[in-house]
Amino acid sequence: MGEKWVLMKTAQTPTNIAVIKYWGKRDETLILPVNDSISVTLDPAHLCTTTTVAVSPAFQQDRMWLNGKEMSLSGGRYQNCLREIRKRAREVEDKEKGIKIEKKDWEKLHLHIASYNNFPTAAGLASSAAGFACLVFALAKLMNVEEDESQLSAIARQGSGSACRSLFGGFVKWIMGKEEDGSDSLAVQLVDEKHWDDLFIIIAVVSSRQKETSSTSGMRESVETSLLLQHRAKEVVPKRTLKMEEAIKNRDFASFAKITCADSNQFHAVCLDTSPPIFYMNDTSHRIISHVEKWNRSEESPQVAYTFDAGPNAVLIAQNRKAAAQLLQRLLFSFPPKSDTDLDSYIIGDKTILKDAGLEGMKDVEALSPHPENGSAQKYPGDVNYFICTRPGKGPVVLSNENLALLDPETGLPK
Amino acid sequence: MGEKWVLMKTAQTPTNIAVIKYWGKRDETLILPVNDSISVTLDPAHLCTTTTVAVSPAFQQDRMWLNGKEMSLSGGRYQNCLREIRKRAREVEDKEKGIKIEKKDWEKLHLHIASYNNFPTAAGLASSAAGFACLVFALAKLMNVEEDESQLSAIARQGSGSACRSLFGGFVKWIMGKEEDGSDSLAVQLVDEKHWDDLFIIIAVVSSRQKETSSTSGMRESVETSLLLQHRAKEVVPKRTLKMEEAIKNRDFASFAKITCADSNQFHAVCLDTSPPIFYMNDTSHRIISHVEKWNRSEESPQVAYTFDAGPNAVLIAQNRKAAAQLLQRLLFSFPPKSDTDLDSYIIGDKTILKDAGLEGMKDVEALSPHPENGSAQKYPGDVNYFICTRPGKGPVVLSNENLALLDPETGLPK
Repeated sequence: MGEKWVLMKTAQTPTNIAVIKYWGKRDETLILPVNDSISVTLDPAHLCTTTTVAVSPAFQQDRMWLNGKEMSLSGGRYQNCLREIRKRAREVEDKEKGIKIEKKDWEKLHLHIASYNNFPTAAGLASSAAGFACLVFALAKLMNVEEDESQLSAIARQGSGSACRSLFGGFVKWIMGKEEDGSDSLAVQLVDEKHWDDLFIIIAVVSSRQKETSSTSGMRESVETSLLLQHRAKEVVPKRTLKMEEAIKNRDFASFAKITCADSNQFHAVCLDTSPPIFYMNDTSHRIISHVEKWNRSEESPQVAYTFDAGPNAVLIAQNRKAAAQLLQRLLFSFPPKSDTDLDSYIIGDKTILKDAGLEGMKDVEALSPHPENGSAQKYPGDVNYFICTRPGKGPVVLSNENLALLDPETGLPK
Repeated sequence: MGEKWVLMKTAQTPTNIAVIKYWGKRDETLILPVNDSISVTLDPAHLCTTTTVAVSPAFQQDRMWLNGKEMSLSGGRYQNCLREIRKRAREVEDKEKGIKIEKKDWEKLHLHIASYNNFPTAAGLASSAAGFACLVFALAKLMNVEEDESQLSAIARQGSGSACRSLFGGFVKWIMGKEEDGSDSLAVQLVDEKHWDDLFIIIAVVSSRQKETSSTSGMRESVETSLLLQHRAKEVVPKRTLKMEEAIKNRDFASFAKITCADSNQFHAVCLDTSPPIFYMNDTSHRIISHVEKWNRSEESPQVAYTFDAGPNAVLIAQNRKAAAQLLQRLLFSFPPKSDTDLDSYIIGDKTILKDAGLEGMKDVEALSPHPENGSAQKYPGDVNYFICTRPGKGPVVLSNENLALLDPETGLPK
């Protein structure tokens, strides 16, 4: 076999947002959690990672580029993922290109990896979840690995815990598992993205002046110091997970919203019970919660669920497009863009919802009236950076169109 | 006996701030808590309620004035206190004035009550605690009640739970009790105000745009919906209370600070775990916590403890005057007054600390440099309304100087 060939695979993997939260590891190295968690996968059209992985006898070392910038692969989390996936590599033959890689060759061959997020990395939108899931998925395809998505999820988990839930679309459960080696700590799909396709999701990317605690160190400190975390993990979450699975199976939005909100709040309660306390939500997050709570209580049944990860951004899950359009009206009344921002860059993702909400330009936003259930007509321009409109979405896919590859097929370097 | 006489007593009672928090009742009417709590009494020179109670055969009904404004006494909490204290009234004789009230007369005689807080009622500084304690204490003195302060505390408790802790100076424990009738749910003094007189207290009265949930309805909602509250009450607080008593006995500031901060944070964690979630702290509260945490960690041992009640105000307990002066420098650097506010109205209470901090005017405040442990040099003018400088203080006293009475000795009406 020639020394100049480059073999590549490109994959696209979604992010996910937990509705039953993962917070706390029982094993730091293997990334084994203290409780099960459940997530909804977000539509990769609006939030996803694309990763191209390449192998070539010409490569001198493993290298990686994230959003065009070279990054170190020396971290334990990358090394664990690379080691585990290489172990499972099998013979690969590309007759057209005249390439044949034997199983044993993979140990010596080096990899190039290029990854790109279609959303701002710094926005606190679980980029590491999509990133590690995509890395493992793309490598599995390149290396002809025969393990299924659940088995791959246990590898992605060793990169970033929540990454294991990005191997599937729809609603996904990360089973905490019991084994010391972590072999049974993996993700399974509860239902696919078609099961509950009424749901619509609006993410408020909230401005923050605070530097946030990373979730890795935050959850370590919670495990070490919170006197509530173990009670949550052992007594609260197991029952809540069962109820959540029921709610998802039955598309019972009232129950889904109640549990989603309660579990987000309890996760942040555990953060606050940590020493020193961790504050991920800020006054804007609190105001969004207050708006949603008041609206839900003013209706016969809840219209919107909220959930917050390790940052101030609100993920708002509306029971259908109509509720999402009404939600958007409420949000834009209280959190309009700053005067120099246009609606087109303030609402991104699936902008079709704007039409449903009767908001075709800034004039329509300015004409919005306060909503009766909300006691305050106060406006907070600039407190939200932008909104992303999206939906539950599908799992990882291979992109066969070579034009979408992030590495040059000749050099194996970023395009 | 003539029909024109008025007999009066005036008392002054301190506020208190809990260092082990009371949150959750097991009996709403008797106001019986789900856990013990511990507080420090604040110096009445800076924060207290003064109450004059008067009795006269000329009074047609029970009446009350708070800060000069007539208030209804029809609420169950007032009625419970009045009933319980009347039950214990005894014979009173004032030979000088030629007045004699028989035990049985008290049932028919009406009362006038005037109460005044030497601090803003709306500032969220436990005015109801001082108020009910003062009401019960002053009435007990007027009616020659023989019960001791602990027994009176069980009556004040029925007005406002935390009021029972304002019957003593120094550090006070509210024992939750076991009896269904609440007879053993009362306060005891752990140590008097001289036991640990190094402590210095700075209260940051924080600006808030939010209308806060009352503690009464907030704790009811927590009891009904938080899945963490019972765990806190049954598993966490009993151990923590014992450690806190030890820390106070030994004047062990490191342990005192650790438990005080952890318990404040856990109380707010339970509020967040409530449905709908309750947020008492805001971004300013979070910033103050972050400042204190960073400073404490940069020193060999903690310098300051923080605690927050049902609002955004920070109560900061410094281990001594020196630490308090350093704290004040740090606070004034980050939270200076707005440009139209002078230092004299921005720092109230025991202003002598300003000299210790080298801050004799706004020029000195403007000349402050950022402190090395605090990563940010950001300033937030206007985010704090003012600071109250004070210390642990004494319990209730009778004011024998008639000039200090709030009711006219002839008419029994507010002066």
